[in-house]
Amino acid sequence: MIVIMNNKAKDDEIKKVMGIVEGLGLEANLSRGGSFCVIGLVGDTSIIDGDKLMAIDGVEKVLKVQEPYKKANRLFKPENSIIDVNGNKIGGKNFAVMAGPCSVESEEQIIEVAKKVKESGANFLRGGAFKPRTSPYSFQGLELEGLNLLLKAKEATGLSIVTEIMSTDYIDVFEEKVDVIQVGARNMQNFDLLKQLGKTNKTILLKRGLSATFEEWIMSAEYIMAGGNENVVLCERGIRTFETYTRNTLDLSAIPVIKKLTHLPIIIDPSHAGGKWWLVEPMAKAAIVAGADGLMIEVHNDPVNALSDGAQSLKPEAFDDLMKKVKVLVELEEREL
Amino acid sequence: MIVIMNNKAKDDEIKKVMGIVEGLGLEANLSRGGSFCVIGLVGDTSIIDGDKLMAIDGVEKVLKVQEPYKKANRLFKPENSIIDVNGNKIGGKNFAVMAGPCSVESEEQIIEVAKKVKESGANFLRGGAFKPRTSPYSFQGLELEGLNLLLKAKEATGLSIVTEIMSTDYIDVFEEKVDVIQVGARNMQNFDLLKQLGKTNKTILLKRGLSATFEEWIMSAEYIMAGGNENVVLCERGIRTFETYTRNTLDLSAIPVIKKLTHLPIIIDPSHAGGKWWLVEPMAKAAIVAGADGLMIEVHNDPVNALSDGAQSLKPEAFDDLMKKVKVLVELEEREL
Amino acid sequence: MIVIMNNKAKDDEIKKVMGIVEGLGLEANLSRGGSFCVIGLVGDTSIIDGDKLMAIDGVEKVLKVQEPYKKANRLFKPENSIIDVNGNKIGGKNFAVMAGPCSVESEEQIIEVAKKVKESGANFLRGGAFKPRTSPYSFQGLELEGLNLLLKAKEATGLSIVTEIMSTDYIDVFEEKVDVIQVGARNMQNFDLLKQLGKTNKTILLKRGLSATFEEWIMSAEYIMAGGNENVVLCERGIRTFETYTRNTLDLSAIPVIKKLTHLPIIIDPSHAGGKWWLVEPMAKAAIVAGADGLMIEVHNDPVNALSDGAQSLKPEAFDDLMKKVKVLVELEEREL
Amino acid sequence: MIVIMNNKAKDDEIKKVMGIVEGLGLEANLSRGGSFCVIGLVGDTSIIDGDKLMAIDGVEKVLKVQEPYKKANRLFKPENSIIDVNGNKIGGKNFAVMAGPCSVESEEQIIEVAKKVKESGANFLRGGAFKPRTSPYSFQGLELEGLNLLLKAKEATGLSIVTEIMSTDYIDVFEEKVDVIQVGARNMQNFDLLKQLGKTNKTILLKRGLSATFEEWIMSAEYIMAGGNENVVLCERGIRTFETYTRNTLDLSAIPVIKKLTHLPIIIDPSHAGGKWWLVEPMAKAAIVAGADGLMIEVHNDPVNALSDGAQSLKPEAFDDLMKKVKVLVELEEREL
Repeated sequence: MIVIMNNKAKDDEIKKVMGIVEGLGLEANLSRGGSFCVIGLVGDTSIIDGDKLMAIDGVEKVLKVQEPYKKANRLFKPENSIIDVNGNKIGGKNFAVMAGPCSVESEEQIIEVAKKVKESGANFLRGGAFKPRTSPYSFQGLELEGLNLLLKAKEATGLSIVTEIMSTDYIDVFEEKVDVIQVGARNMQNFDLLKQLGKTNKTILLKRGLSATFEEWIMSAEYIMAGGNENVVLCERGIRTFETYTRNTLDLSAIPVIKKLTHLPIIIDPSHAGGKWWLVEPMAKAAIVAGADGLMIEVHNDPVNALSDGAQSLKPEAFDDLMKKVKVLVELEEREL
Repeated sequence: MIVIMNNKAKDDEIKKVMGIVEGLGLEANLSRGGSFCVIGLVGDTSIIDGDKLMAIDGVEKVLKVQEPYKKANRLFKPENSIIDVNGNKIGGKNFAVMAGPCSVESEEQIIEVAKKVKESGANFLRGGAFKPRTSPYSFQGLELEGLNLLLKAKEATGLSIVTEIMSTDYIDVFEEKVDVIQVGARNMQNFDLLKQLGKTNKTILLKRGLSATFEEWIMSAEYIMAGGNENVVLCERGIRTFETYTRNTLDLSAIPVIKKLTHLPIIIDPSHAGGKWWLVEPMAKAAIVAGADGLMIEVHNDPVNALSDGAQSLKPEAFDDLMKKVKVLVELEEREL
Repeated sequence: MIVIMNNKAKDDEIKKVMGIVEGLGLEANLSRGGSFCVIGLVGDTSIIDGDKLMAIDGVEKVLKVQEPYKKANRLFKPENSIIDVNGNKIGGKNFAVMAGPCSVESEEQIIEVAKKVKESGANFLRGGAFKPRTSPYSFQGLELEGLNLLLKAKEATGLSIVTEIMSTDYIDVFEEKVDVIQVGARNMQNFDLLKQLGKTNKTILLKRGLSATFEEWIMSAEYIMAGGNENVVLCERGIRTFETYTRNTLDLSAIPVIKKLTHLPIIIDPSHAGGKWWLVEPMAKAAIVAGADGLMIEVHNDPVNALSDGAQSLKPEAFDDLMKKVKVLVELEEREL
Repeated sequence: MIVIMNNKAKDDEIKKVMGIVEGLGLEANLSRGGSFCVIGLVGDTSIIDGDKLMAIDGVEKVLKVQEPYKKANRLFKPENSIIDVNGNKIGGKNFAVMAGPCSVESEEQIIEVAKKVKESGANFLRGGAFKPRTSPYSFQGLELEGLNLLLKAKEATGLSIVTEIMSTDYIDVFEEKVDVIQVGARNMQNFDLLKQLGKTNKTILLKRGLSATFEEWIMSAEYIMAGGNENVVLCERGIRTFETYTRNTLDLSAIPVIKKLTHLPIIIDPSHAGGKWWLVEPMAKAAIVAGADGLMIEVHNDPVNALSDGAQSLKPEAFDDLMKKVKVLVELEEREL
């Protein structure tokens, strides 16, 4: 950490900063130039709150030199993390495809979609049992019944299941029944939920918050990892910008950035990002060649009657077509589906 | 709700939309012009998911005519809601000032600050016991001990206390001990928490999410109100934009907008929005004349040693100065502190 | 300027940076700590492009310690700039009110509005002759004829006129006829226009770009000032954010921020920011107590038939009511209209 | 265009709207439902300003059904536009690669880079002669001398040249010397420049503004096309969002969106978007499979000494490597470089 004093900083202000830093057991190195004065901090600076130093008169800026995350940091673990879910691997050379409906609606629906997406090559079944809906009056998901239907679809197809958790109240049930626990964008900074998931050993799919910076997103992964659970997969699903034609703006640069900063796998959800089914294919293809470790894609056997998010779902035939193109690019990138 | 068909929509597509709508028990009125075809829906359209209709070929846009919120809607309750917290009223002619440190740090600190802010005219004591921190390695608050210290400060001063809840696990404790339960920006769409708070009868201070639209924010209030608890106060605390000089961008237009759309009180937190203490006074003053129902202001007796958010805290003397200016403007606006 | 090397930087990379810096005639001070290595640059660092240094292996960050603007910088001119326009002063204790229609439409219209706003207390007449319209098919303004009508309104009322320039082709005409030349948000970084305006001695009203940071905005003022024209007034008119209920988000924190960083006057345009007439009054009042040096307000005698921007215009009677409230607050702030 | 009246709209308000519409020579069709009242407008609605209608009491929303652009609209010209620049085609099956330094710095530099990028497969040489710099104190480009150096590089290699125009003052020179005239992001809504470029018959490369919506961007293309020049190529180069780790956020969904809404070619500039050289390759690859018609890539023979934008430039060797991967994907997409 580096503290930059402003050019009107007085000697006693500089001393005050150094005193505080040294009082915390760190070393403070002073360096002065013509128009600048910099204090370099040596030691474990993760215990210092930069905002606190900013409150001292004379301090211009406080700069973190080291990233605030440790367990997720590629600096401390250079090789890619590979996460094993019932034998299906995520990360490394492996390419994961998670497909299924936005919401679980009925036994018939989920089993039919599961069979179809498996045939087309998906290796995970996604489907919402607990749904985060903006309105309290919208369909909130089949909840526990939905979880059980997902298990039936798993039984019928062998696909591992991915579904979203919305409350710490259900952690035990999810631990028992679900293969990959999804934390949605709206709960990315529900720190209490993250902490409790850190105590499980389930794979956690952590979606990027609507307005979360890369650092905040990685710090949320760090919450889970700091608790002892290093099975974290990140998922970019679009950020909120001024553009409203697309529901959100899919930030594909997240792929190389996350791979540079962390060792965690990252997958892309092109369905939620754009909110339009015809954006799914080009964005899915783009994600693969940009280095993504997988895709999460909404597939529904009857988009018009879907209880949520119909406009962005592919029909099974369209998904099957897409998977043909996906396979070509996955192979080209020397990865395995 | 109005469905606008595109100008290439075929007759059977139009019929399909009308069939679905009528199948849900609503009336569908077709209106055609030269280049447009509009279907107006009559009945309780809150049960229809617009996205679902968007998935039908031929549909151009689906437009909600009515706001999706009911209990929060000024249309259905024209007069301002006034919420009573131990005799202190929020809303209407009343002006609330909630002041105190970012975090509760010690008995001495919280009682001293409480006494100071009361002397200056505050009528609520704010202070964080459970802290939402970006990093798992940062100070997370004194938690339950912090709540108890707030109670001691309440005992010493008579000030009602406002503090943030981060987990449904603590709802019972908060219901017993806290006067105003704050839901932070990061939990604004933690729908499970909102639902459970809807079952209490505590006053809930609902902060606007970092990238929440007005409608999403009001819908989160609606979650609480739909559960039966209509004691909701909204709090604008800055939104996330491209500008980084200020921590967030305080959106003061939220005041007239919320007053137009809802009957709920709205208060402003100028401390968190800007992240700089010298922005607090001008933004606090601006909030009052723009029609806010109150202010939430960070005050610390020793910002440099504050365990969090020092740079944006006012010292008690600065808060006292501010309150003199606040009182002039509150009176000018014909309100009562 | 400070260059922070990353913790894997090699000695020859450090030497390379120092060599480049010294080759440009600057002094380079090296400071090393446990996990950091910082190079402080002494001398006129405005000649160095930080991005260039960022391209060297081993460089982590390049940090500007000094703001990149000089003439606009309050550091080098601590007192407020006061700009005299035909005896009407902007800045310091003075409060300016610029009012009038979005577009000049006819002689009758502009003279009538000018008389009305003068009676209510405005000291400048605003009105668009050249209009920046998103569509080439929309009304583009009366252009030169509009300028002449503004001059007639000036003659009839004595009000100084403010109007927008859209092309360097008209600089001579604007210099001759206009009192305050407005640069619109879309042209804030039309650097060629700024440079040429820097060679005039007219007062320039520089609106903030839709997504311009404070620093970029000030740098655009610096372009004008660097050319020799220091008569620059800044105008905040709302920034583009994710929120669409309001046309833009009015960033009132711009007032204290601009006053801290620069010595230039800043005025607020609440009409364009929100895009709704009922937002004008609360935001105008807020601007005054936050320290603004003036207001720019749209007034139209017939909003419904206005050729542009009707929804955000006040009728003369509403403007007159507003001015009564404006006067009370201007006086309270110890300023003079 | 459709006008939606609010549910408190009175009969005379409805009549007023209809009267205005009919007064403009359009047909107004009234449709009433239980809680809604809609007026459909038939005729050339491009002459109506929606904001004007919004100012009438009782009007809730004004909705454009038709896109406001005509010449750029795919609806009216379903086949892809293919633009011929000295025999090099942009659009359709063709894939364009524009490469070169950010700034033209010397004859030696530009000719060397031109030769290198041609060898690697680029078919256009890009290079800035007039540079839009945030600071008036930064290098502003070699200006006319830079243009002449580009011509020498064209002579030496046969590559067509692409360079940015910043002022209408130079339109004649650009028309004479430049093959593709670039309009930068900051000038995307410099309407006067767009109008004058509409009178030339040069190919115009129109970059998306930092905070321009798709519609605004297309409308700027429409300005050029409405003037008679239909040779417009769009270029996505990153939009401004809250994320600061990358300079801008590259919005690759622009590719399918622009292709759906317009018939114009779209190319991607991954160098400026991210501001980091290691983002160029993954984003370039992603752009190709998402359907882009070309790439614009910064290449410099000496990034460290580059006078601008060094951090995002590729060295010629890295560009050569990239082009090998580009060619594989271009072929896979059945296009020709």
